[in-house]
Amino acid sequence: MRLALLAGGTGGAKLAAGFAGLLSPGELTVIANTADDDEFWGLLVSPDVDAILYRLAGMFNERSGFGVTDDTFHALSMLRRLGEPTWFALGDMDIGLHLLRSRLVHSGMRLTEAVADIAHRLAIDAAVLPMSDEPVRTRVLTDDGDLAMQRWFVEQKCAPPVRSLRYQGIEAAQPAPEVVQAVHDADAVVIGPSNPVLSIDPILTLLAPHLDRRRVIVVSPIVGGRSLKGPTVEMLRDLGEEATTAGVAKHYAGIAGTFVIDLVDTALQGAITTLGMQPIVCDTVMADAEDERRLATDIARIVEGWVADGAS
Amino acid sequence: MRLALLAGGTGGAKLAAGFAGLLSPGELTVIANTADDDEFWGLLVSPDVDAILYRLAGMFNERSGFGVTDDTFHALSMLRRLGEPTWFALGDMDIGLHLLRSRLVHSGMRLTEAVADIAHRLAIDAAVLPMSDEPVRTRVLTDDGDLAMQRWFVEQKCAPPVRSLRYQGIEAAQPAPEVVQAVHDADAVVIGPSNPVLSIDPILTLLAPHLDRRRVIVVSPIVGGRSLKGPTVEMLRDLGEEATTAGVAKHYAGIAGTFVIDLVDTALQGAITTLGMQPIVCDTVMADAEDERRLATDIARIVEGWVADGAS
Repeated sequence: MRLALLAGGTGGAKLAAGFAGLLSPGELTVIANTADDDEFWGLLVSPDVDAILYRLAGMFNERSGFGVTDDTFHALSMLRRLGEPTWFALGDMDIGLHLLRSRLVHSGMRLTEAVADIAHRLAIDAAVLPMSDEPVRTRVLTDDGDLAMQRWFVEQKCAPPVRSLRYQGIEAAQPAPEVVQAVHDADAVVIGPSNPVLSIDPILTLLAPHLDRRRVIVVSPIVGGRSLKGPTVEMLRDLGEEATTAGVAKHYAGIAGTFVIDLVDTALQGAITTLGMQPIVCDTVMADAEDERRLATDIARIVEGWVADGAS
Repeated sequence: MRLALLAGGTGGAKLAAGFAGLLSPGELTVIANTADDDEFWGLLVSPDVDAILYRLAGMFNERSGFGVTDDTFHALSMLRRLGEPTWFALGDMDIGLHLLRSRLVHSGMRLTEAVADIAHRLAIDAAVLPMSDEPVRTRVLTDDGDLAMQRWFVEQKCAPPVRSLRYQGIEAAQPAPEVVQAVHDADAVVIGPSNPVLSIDPILTLLAPHLDRRRVIVVSPIVGGRSLKGPTVEMLRDLGEEATTAGVAKHYAGIAGTFVIDLVDTALQGAITTLGMQPIVCDTVMADAEDERRLATDIARIVEGWVADGAS
């Protein structure tokens, strides 16, 4: 079975780890949002790609929710001493990875090749693909001005109310050829439980023409009216979208044929059917690796059914 | 009194600290060798400049002889895990400084301006100037091949016998304008007790036309037949030079009018006079900050005498 998973850095990354423990090498491709990327002191930092790499390599810092377990911040302390702004907490080990990736890119590799090289060095079996080789940067238009995504998210701690989002560079960007290939080869495209507007929409803006709605399955990032991690609900509300599971289902209705909701949202099955999507009820809460594997297994069984039916 | 000190990363840097504790802001300019510079993962590493900066900022790691006190090596451990060669021990705090300097240079500053900016951020009063804004890179031609200086020095631990040195890029390089100005304004140019062929000759190759021999004073890097730190004696011997205090005096006879020898080398005064240089006997061994200040004081008094005599 071949799966392509569209993912941000938290829920999508967790589901990626679930699939990685389940599928054989060559079966899983994770397509990561890069619209959250930013540069610090010339280092390309790619938070969603890195969260996926670190998680798949068993190095992800669960406690802080970013970076590498047991990392230190001594380079940053020097930069602080030198008077630099240090609101973005780059760990020392994390910097090691950024140094290598930046060097690979500057020496002529496409970003996709550089990430694949690093995944290989970390002994990661799954293919991890940035959505594009071209830079796309989410700008968050707030009451306090037009902010880069990391500045809004990390420095401003999501405080300024969001008026709109803009994916700067998306018009000129192409999905990487490996991404297009992976989507065409996949038995199913799974949209992970990531922030729809921050993490998934940038990928979909690039990939929509390549998707077959019947083979796209979304895992709801909202469970019982709350997002399990991150500012999804508040952001959707600020943007004037319906900040509920049903609202997210509407958001994806044109792109996906199947919508996975949590056990606590069973009552929404009818509404999802009305949107023209098949509702699936699973335990979607991933508190630990066991949960990740369980949800991945449930989704893989759904896709197995499609493959058996010749739906692909 | 205005002094310009030509320095490498050890003896010259120690003498710089001695002068810095003695002179007023604006009186001391340290001109650092940059022919030992190298790049690692896109970071410009400038060991002699950095040894001087860290020493003047009170952060130099005396125990290891390079980098920052109490630094850690976690970025490097990540790079090692990623399969990168890690023979050059870049500390995490050290990387913080390299990240900033590389960014300043890439954003359009000359190297001289970037180093001045960093010195200012570290609250260093003395002017610290790289010898040139253009890259010069010492190549060490050995029995094992043509090696970059840091590869010979650090990776190969000075083991391969040296046949010759080449300062790659020196023909195209100019001394930075600030360097030329400092030398012209100086009452004396002091050549620190650094390796003559590795640390000082690259600077002299650029600066010789701007030097007035009568105002140049050398501190011998060889004391009692030994170099106090580093491979000076072995390297001079490999190169077929006379690897003694008298040999170093000959090496500098065309460029300097005054030659400072240690108390243990008093017997060499006649030989130095024969070379046309004025011998000065001092305690030149700098074991601690007290020693650095004492030697700096002795030299400053010599220069005071010149200024009083109107020799400048």
